[in-house]
This record gives sequence, structure tokens and C-alpha cells, in this order.
Amino acid sequence: MTSREDFKQAQHKLLVIPGPIEVTDEVLFANAHPSMSHVSPEFIPVFGDCIRMTRQVLLTKDAQPFLISGSGTLGWDQVSANLVEPGENALVLHTGYFGDSFSDCLQTYGAKVGQLKAPIGGTVDPATIEKALKSKKYKVLTFTHVDTSTGVLSNAKEIAQLVQRVSPSTLVVMDAVCSVASEEINMDDWGLDVVMTASQKGLSTPPGLSIVVASQKAINVFQSRTSPVTSYYASWRKWLPIMKAYEDGNAAYFATPPVNLIYAFHESLRQITKTAPSLEKRFELHRQASKQIKDAAKALGLNQLPVNDSVAANGMTALYYPDGLVASDILPRLGKRGIVVAGGLHTEIKDKYFRIGHMGVTATDQQRGDVNAVIQALQESLAEANLKSA
Amino acid sequence: MTSREDFKQAQHKLLVIPGPIEVTDEVLFANAHPSMSHVSPEFIPVFGDCIRMTRQVLLTKDAQPFLISGSGTLGWDQVSANLVEPGENALVLHTGYFGDSFSDCLQTYGAKVGQLKAPIGGTVDPATIEKALKSKKYKVLTFTHVDTSTGVLSNAKEIAQLVQRVSPSTLVVMDAVCSVASEEINMDDWGLDVVMTASQKGLSTPPGLSIVVASQKAINVFQSRTSPVTSYYASWRKWLPIMKAYEDGNAAYFATPPVNLIYAFHESLRQITKTAPSLEKRFELHRQASKQIKDAAKALGLNQLPVNDSVAANGMTALYYPDGLVASDILPRLGKRGIVVAGGLHTEIKDKYFRIGHMGVTATDQQRGDVNAVIQALQESLAEANLKSA
Repeated sequence: MTSREDFKQAQHKLLVIPGPIEVTDEVLFANAHPSMSHVSPEFIPVFGDCIRMTRQVLLTKDAQPFLISGSGTLGWDQVSANLVEPGENALVLHTGYFGDSFSDCLQTYGAKVGQLKAPIGGTVDPATIEKALKSKKYKVLTFTHVDTSTGVLSNAKEIAQLVQRVSPSTLVVMDAVCSVASEEINMDDWGLDVVMTASQKGLSTPPGLSIVVASQKAINVFQSRTSPVTSYYASWRKWLPIMKAYEDGNAAYFATPPVNLIYAFHESLRQITKTAPSLEKRFELHRQASKQIKDAAKALGLNQLPVNDSVAANGMTALYYPDGLVASDILPRLGKRGIVVAGGLHTEIKDKYFRIGHMGVTATDQQRGDVNAVIQALQESLAEANLKSA
Repeated sequence: MTSREDFKQAQHKLLVIPGPIEVTDEVLFANAHPSMSHVSPEFIPVFGDCIRMTRQVLLTKDAQPFLISGSGTLGWDQVSANLVEPGENALVLHTGYFGDSFSDCLQTYGAKVGQLKAPIGGTVDPATIEKALKSKKYKVLTFTHVDTSTGVLSNAKEIAQLVQRVSPSTLVVMDAVCSVASEEINMDDWGLDVVMTASQKGLSTPPGLSIVVASQKAINVFQSRTSPVTSYYASWRKWLPIMKAYEDGNAAYFATPPVNLIYAFHESLRQITKTAPSLEKRFELHRQASKQIKDAAKALGLNQLPVNDSVAANGMTALYYPDGLVASDILPRLGKRGIVVAGGLHTEIKDKYFRIGHMGVTATDQQRGDVNAVIQALQESLAEANLKSA
């Protein structure tokens, strides 16, 4: 019988893509939990704790978490099918690939979507947002906190407060798949109505869990909708009683939860909320790791995709290849050095840049030396590539 | 570093509910795989193999598997949103809880649903199905192979062939969540158009994967639909290129797959398709385990929910409590003996019966002694309960 203390994950290349990310041995061990009934008295409080700890991570008192088997993408369906009725308007702030996808999803469920597109590497100008909000009644405004395709960080607080000032009935929906637990988020104070994320990024758990947290204001909007919910699997009518039951210590059934992954998520949330470093300190450590990597890249002559540091994520870095070099010059050389980064994703510039993730233990557990390993491999790979191309 | 050979799952009560089920140490170890990129050259063939081995388990040459992060429930959305256009007719054969849910899902996406309800414990009479099929044009006919709520086994081959004879353009959709890899299924020979299942039952993997396999006929019907697909996350327009890419050895992105779970699924599929016992022998071992438990229950004076053995599942057993005894007399006593079974689920008789699962290693690995342990605990628990109530 392998104990939690004994379990050590297999050796592997360092995974520094913007998700999935490196996770701890304890989280993986929890993912290897023996099979358990999803309605057993042992499992119910584990699920309930996950709901409660998810609130803690987002600094919200009473927003409603939905923890559902699925990818982060499913969060868009939850928002589109529950909060927007067919024919209603949605305003999507676009800072990369994920704005297009969210728009596509909203339209699938009947929303009329207006997009405000930022130039690549930038964010949408607040004056432009204000003008749009004044021109029409929008049911929701959505934005991507960190767009995984560009590494652009939006100013969540500023956007939320702008919406409250100009169009207080519009719900503020934040796609935070690539920011929860790596970027500061203060859901209640900032006035965010929906925060949607997934397990495999800052939350440091394997992929497979869609995590959506809805303010009571959003829940009220949902409860008072007049047309039927337009999805079955993503319907909060089905899930709300389930989440309430588990949090109250009872089991209820709509679909089988991903039991093992819930154990893993529980372990990661426990580490994040109940062990050092504190949540605040974690954000600070992500900022530090980010600065180290961005400074090193700059010193190597690499330009980052975000137009400046104030709109650059702290959990990932997107870098253009230097002139004359392409993906095949850099990524395989990093790979040979045991470092796995990600290629480009934004369709317009896909082959011109690459992405480094620095979330979770890579940023918070400095003993691991991940950040230095990444920087060193980057230096060596670039030097080698330049030599070859010279 | 814990090796695959060293890893042994923690001691725990024997889980014999109709899913999740007991899984092997190797499958759990695979679920604790270090984090990997979902687009890495190491992971792509693992995903591709899962697609290929899923076909093998269902004995289909060219049907298209969809392996998507989600619960089994998501399979209903896939069928309803991709194969049925709003306003089209669906005929649902109802043998328990899951017929109602599938109907609910179909209606959510705009189908007009007709239900044929079997009496509790029975299946729908073929003559009734034939009459319904002749009365109206149905886009799909759906049935539950093993209804997890009742343990009723439908005759899949008979239903499929009836539909082909009477209404060949109607797609035959089988909800096989509780039957794949525990009941014989011959997808191509029987003429099933869609088989939908999940990872946590006969496929012996933790929960979190929706597995839907669509015949080329079904794919053609999907491709020629005239209205847009009515779901985003469940849209085959999104997923079909992804599945084809991974099977061809390339990566593509729509949503992050549940990487660790795919490793676990791969290991389980490997055990099922590439190690002894053979698939056929596995079905035989499930029939044997089922007979042992059903015979023992009969000897104890317990009546099963299915009206006779020919409509009783081989992967689970549903038993009425004996007169004068209730759930609290039996289930806690089994629990004290280390055996976890499930209560009732069918809304009309929820408190009158309980369910025992005997899928996967519990049936196929006789060395474990699971079946005997269940029978012995049942004998002891009943004796103790009778003594107490006497």
C-alpha cells in the first residue's frame, strides 16, 4: 500500500506551458485515490470543502461555485446558456483567441454579440467600452482576465467598476481560466458577477474540472429568466440543487462528479488556502517569477507580445521569436534541455511567438528552481540557435 | 520516485455500486501521471490509441469515437444537439430513471419526444415499438442498454434490427453507460448508430470522461443537418476535427482534454483489449458473477427488480428489500462489513430496493474474491437484520 508520504511522481520534463502545469506529489496521489461512491459520507464533505475553498480563493463571501466535470470551455456554455436569453445582447472584450471563442459560444445559444477588439498585445480602451455600454443595453459584458493566447492581462477591477458606473444591470463575466490563483482577484470587492476557470492552471490540479463562480446577483438574473435554459448538461437548474446539497452535507445526483479529480482539487485547494505561503504571498511570488523571466527575456533581446508590462500576465509570458529564428530553432532545443513550453495560439501570429507558463509551484516553490532552469535553458537554446544560424 | 510496479492503492471498502467501480492499481497509477502537455508528442499517440481501442471494445470497424471531458450525462447532449434538429421527433424507450432524463435532454434541444414506458422491471414490447415507428417519422430511437436505476437489460440487437426493418432512416441510439465492457455489444453487426458511455463503469477508469461512438451513418446525418448545432461544448463540429487529428498523430485544440484521465483510460483499455481474459471471456465472467449474486440473493429470499433473468443486467443486480426491512437495516450493516452498495434511484420506488454493481475486476478477477465477499456480507447483514427485527 503506497502512502501519501511515499508517493513521488515519475521523472519528467518540466512542464512550463500556460496549463496544464506542474502539480505536487500530494495532488497526484489524491488523483490516485481508490474508487469511492460519489454519494458516500466520506466523499460528500470533500466536495463540500471544495466549494467552500473555491470561494476563499476568489475572496467572495456568498457567490455560488459550480464544479462540473468538463474542460474550461464548458464555462462559456454555462454563462451563455444560463445568463443570456436568446436575442439578448452580449459585449465581448477581445484580447486574443479566447474572445473569439466566447463570442462563438454566446452566438450558439442565441445571443447577439458585439465585439470590441484590442490590437494584438493590448487591451480595449475604457472609453471605447463606455461608449459601447451607453449605446445599447447589454445583458453581459465578458472579458478574458489573462488571454492564454497572448499573455495579455486585463484590468479586471477597472472594467468591473466601469460597468457598474455606466451600466449597472449588465453582468460582468470574467474568463479567468488562466488567472485564478496566479493573479490577484477580489471577486466581491471588484464587483465581478461571474468568474469562470478550470482546474489545470493556477489551481494546480490535473485538467477535467470546469469551475464557474456566480455572484448572487448573477444567480438572481438566472432565476428570473423567462425562457428555458438552452443547455442540458450546463444547466444551472440541474446543478444548483446539487451544489447546495453537497455543501449542506447531503448527496444529490444529476451526473457523476469526477470523484478522483475532486480529491485532487481538494488537496490543491488545501495547499493554497491552508498552508504557507498565503494567498497574497502567492500572488507576490507569481509577480516575482514573472519579472525574473520577463527581465531575462528582455536581456536576451526577446520582445514580449503584450505591449507593456502593465498589461502582461504574471502567470505566463508570451515572447516573439527573435528575427531570423522560428519555432523549430527554439522549442526542440528547450525540449532537449528538459523544458516544455508552448507554441503560439493566436491565429494571426501563430508561428511568430511562443509561451512560457509560470504558475503554481513553478512560481511559489522557489526551492524547485524551475524559474532558473527555464531561464538557463532559454539562454543556452538561443545561443545555440544563433550560432547555428550565424 | 514511485514506480508502476510499486504503487498499491490505499485500503478501502469494496466499492460495488453500479459505478464508479473498483479499478486496478495500474489505472490509478496512470491517473497520477506527471502533468503533460495535451499537445505533446508523448501524449498524442496515447489519445490516438484510446480512440482506436474504444472501437475495439465495441467491435466496430469505422465508427467515430468522441472522448470528451465530462460526465456520461454529456453524451445525451451530444446526441440531442448534433443528431436531432429542432422540431424533429425522437422516440425514447423507457426502462427507468435514465429514459426520463434522456427525454428531458432531447426536449431541451428542441426535439419532440415520444416515450414508450415499460412497467418497472420490464422492457418495452417490440410490437409496441413497431407500432410507434410506423405511426410517425422518428429521427432517432433511444434506449438504455442497462438502466442503472433498475438493472434492466434491454435486448439491443433485437431493438436495432426492428428499427432497421421498420424504419431504416431512424438512428438507433443506445445509452450504454452501464453496459460497455460488461455486457456483450457488437456495434456494427447489430447496427447500432450511436453508443454512449462513460469511463467509470465497465471501462474501469475513474469518472470524468464522456465517451460517445457514432456510426458513419450517424456522422453523415450530422454532416447533412440544415440547422446549426445547438450546443457549443458538445458540438461535433468542434470535436470531429480534434478526434481525427489525434488519431492521425497530430494535435489540435478546442478544449483541454483531461490528460491524466486519458492516461488512466489508456491503461484500462490496454488491460481490456490486450491482456487476458479476452473481451468475450470478460462478458462470460460478468455473466457468471451476476448469476452467483442473483442465485445467492434468491436463496436469501430477495426478489430482484427486473421481472426475469432475461431482462436482468450482468454487470449489476437490483434487489428489493425483504418485507419489513428498509435501507437502514441493510446498507449500514453491509458498510460495517466493508461493502459499499447503492440505494434505490428510480423515483417511484426509491426506498424499496438497493443495487449491487459487479463490473470490471470485481467480475473478471476472481482471485480478488469480491463476489464471495459481497455474498457473505449480504448473508450476514440479512441474518443480523432479521434477528434484530424479529
